[in-house]
Amino acid sequence: MSLKIAILGAGPSGLAQLRSFVSAQLAAHEEMPEIVCFEKQSDLGGMWNYTWRTGLDKHGEPVHGSMYRYLWSNGPKECLEFADYSFDEHFGRAIPSYPPREVLKNYVMGRIERKDVRQYIRFETAVRWVSFDEHTQRFSVTVMDHQTDQLHSEEFDFVVVATGHFSTPNVPYFPGVERFPGRVLHAHDFRDALEFKDKDLLLVGSSYSAEDIGTQCHKYGAKSVTFSYRSRPLGYDWPAGITEVPLLERLDGNVAHFSDGSSKAVDAIILCTGYQHSFPFLPDDLRLQTRNRLYPQSLYKGILWESNPRLIYLGMQDQYFTFNMFDAQAWYARDVMLGRIPLPDAATMQADMQDWLSREEALANASAEIDFQAAYVRDLLQPTDYPEFAVEAQGELFKRWKQDKKVDIMGYRNQCYTSTVTGTAAPELPAPWLEILDDSLEHFLSHDYAGVVGEPVEQV
Amino acid sequence: MSLKIAILGAGPSGLAQLRSFVSAQLAAHEEMPEIVCFEKQSDLGGMWNYTWRTGLDKHGEPVHGSMYRYLWSNGPKECLEFADYSFDEHFGRAIPSYPPREVLKNYVMGRIERKDVRQYIRFETAVRWVSFDEHTQRFSVTVMDHQTDQLHSEEFDFVVVATGHFSTPNVPYFPGVERFPGRVLHAHDFRDALEFKDKDLLLVGSSYSAEDIGTQCHKYGAKSVTFSYRSRPLGYDWPAGITEVPLLERLDGNVAHFSDGSSKAVDAIILCTGYQHSFPFLPDDLRLQTRNRLYPQSLYKGILWESNPRLIYLGMQDQYFTFNMFDAQAWYARDVMLGRIPLPDAATMQADMQDWLSREEALANASAEIDFQAAYVRDLLQPTDYPEFAVEAQGELFKRWKQDKKVDIMGYRNQCYTSTVTGTAAPELPAPWLEILDDSLEHFLSHDYAGVVGEPVEQV
Repeated sequence: MSLKIAILGAGPSGLAQLRSFVSAQLAAHEEMPEIVCFEKQSDLGGMWNYTWRTGLDKHGEPVHGSMYRYLWSNGPKECLEFADYSFDEHFGRAIPSYPPREVLKNYVMGRIERKDVRQYIRFETAVRWVSFDEHTQRFSVTVMDHQTDQLHSEEFDFVVVATGHFSTPNVPYFPGVERFPGRVLHAHDFRDALEFKDKDLLLVGSSYSAEDIGTQCHKYGAKSVTFSYRSRPLGYDWPAGITEVPLLERLDGNVAHFSDGSSKAVDAIILCTGYQHSFPFLPDDLRLQTRNRLYPQSLYKGILWESNPRLIYLGMQDQYFTFNMFDAQAWYARDVMLGRIPLPDAATMQADMQDWLSREEALANASAEIDFQAAYVRDLLQPTDYPEFAVEAQGELFKRWKQDKKVDIMGYRNQCYTSTVTGTAAPELPAPWLEILDDSLEHFLSHDYAGVVGEPVEQV
Repeated sequence: MSLKIAILGAGPSGLAQLRSFVSAQLAAHEEMPEIVCFEKQSDLGGMWNYTWRTGLDKHGEPVHGSMYRYLWSNGPKECLEFADYSFDEHFGRAIPSYPPREVLKNYVMGRIERKDVRQYIRFETAVRWVSFDEHTQRFSVTVMDHQTDQLHSEEFDFVVVATGHFSTPNVPYFPGVERFPGRVLHAHDFRDALEFKDKDLLLVGSSYSAEDIGTQCHKYGAKSVTFSYRSRPLGYDWPAGITEVPLLERLDGNVAHFSDGSSKAVDAIILCTGYQHSFPFLPDDLRLQTRNRLYPQSLYKGILWESNPRLIYLGMQDQYFTFNMFDAQAWYARDVMLGRIPLPDAATMQADMQDWLSREEALANASAEIDFQAAYVRDLLQPTDYPEFAVEAQGELFKRWKQDKKVDIMGYRNQCYTSTVTGTAAPELPAPWLEILDDSLEHFLSHDYAGVVGEPVEQV
């Protein structure tokens, strides 16, 4: 009997897992396991599948998407390029380093469409419950098929949880918020900056959501953007109209009071207060509980559930590396499932995890974090047949990106990077990012970009 | 071994069920069943427990509340008065017929606080899964206790589903909505009319949500309110600033196009498009599937799951009668669970349901619907010891209410009704409803109302 594998979610991680098997089959003529990928949404793409909906979707399921209009990549595309499918191959020419959402989605999904993985995906199907039978050593996965409005249960040898961790908002309470006379939303529900044109905006938080939503809103005409931070400010050199203040303490009508005694009247509040790892379909003994960190506890190689490695989590780390890290995880997970990579005994796995955890806890700055994650990706790639790519060189690009942001937070997207996969030097945007209001694929691809195609970076 | 009963939800229906048992115990000295009420929120009140949150709550669970600020009762309080706990008893004096949310909640919860039902309620506990074992004839209820972040399973003889049906929004798609440059929300996420001050608003829908949110927004300064209806307009005599148009066909930027060829530029869209009966914690064979109607199929006496009457649904009807109908259902359900009311054979139950369904389908107008639901409530009350009250007389008040609305949709809340429970004639509001912007309990109770206490209506 062939292996049976459930993949939960058809976003970047789940699709990487699917592609890993499609590739394995093509390369080695091994028996393809029976794979079923359950996807709550009606199309693939996960977080990249933009939706105008907020709250609950048409079937009453929590909306997965936190994606908003006018989002552009906030890191250079050269840091997320697939080793087996370059930007040059997809677009047939060089494009700038920072593409808008539709362009990036087009690339990520492009390699998937070509490999025809849709046959494995059951859309509009939400996972209700997963249980594990110690006796049979198999999982039972119960799903709601919203196309038929019926529940189904099915047994699997492996379950791959690829449901992401930027969907379930962490929403703290601030005194007085229940009487605030305007919209209060979490970044998860942010969709369109134009809603906040000419408004005084308060953004609570000081991580990527705050930084990116705040700059978007400034770009699209917000009257003012005030960031409120808990521990430390974003600290960029902000243009007029953007300021940072310490933590919000309370609201009095429309007036926000901060911990330094200052206050400001605002029209709307966006809580950029992070996300929770949420797996309501998993029993306690299979459920990952972690904060957003580079090396979550209880996951051997960052993916295999320590107490039951037949359960696999993809993409649950805090991320510098994204799509190609998911690939590395998926290829490693595939080889474990196929028995190509034997698992060591529990003590060895424990020691390996502990080593990574100790290293993670000693990280002193972003540069060290990038090196740590590059080493983690390298560690995963090494035993697999995933095409070699310049992980460490991409790490160096991340360090340059951090520096570019520090120099000019409103202009870092105007920078150009060189692909480690193809050696192509990215052309410049046709205008500064701050001036490009049309973020459509059509508009982005309507320009003649003068890219220089080069040679791939040599491996270390 | 005493009976064990699970009540899912501590809103008006679940609390009615709890109170029915507390009352039964006090009245007849019967053995109290073991009762556990699971409540997702951190306090009792269900829909009446206003929350500023939208989308997902602090534990990542879908927010239950659809309640908004400045909501006033949209029916006279004399139509929802409890027979065993009058408004006069609660407030110690006469108050106007249309109280705001906090006042009504204070009344509904007031009788509960006095009876101390909190001991039975497990707060911040979401129901994950319910299954039924044919062999033991018991239910297993699996819940997530968010206070401990742990799952628990427990067995019960009866399960009472009291989770409401105005929480899971029905959200249709309209072409172009994904490019609309402003907020698009469902009524479920509407919280504060002040967000829409000076805005041109489009409300899609023509039932209670549209009517009430539209009039609220007008009251609090919306520039214009446009209602878009599918089959027929609300048809009231609207003031300047409120208009009705047929169905929205598409959006082109911020311009809404309607099926009569007309169009209007709008700033925000509120989809008042109803709710779904949603029970993601129930297997197919226990799960009620119905549209919002006065007599849902497969429920004997409107509450007992036909194929397994150990499963009970409260309050799943479309409603003229509310709180006191939930009482009637809860008392009847209690007596079934205690064995006081024996259930007839399947054929008899089927015939009884079919009779009600046929009557429902023949209903020609609102007046007939009110009579139908009054007859239904009467049918439930008859075999129980619930205090006699003038159901039919309350039905007549509902008919007057319909008429009052037809005469003056912006002023019907200024009308006064006479209690069928105490005979008290409600005093007038201190000013027309349209002019009272402060909806707080303190403000409402700060006035001296000159009520006339009278005699209860004689029973038919």
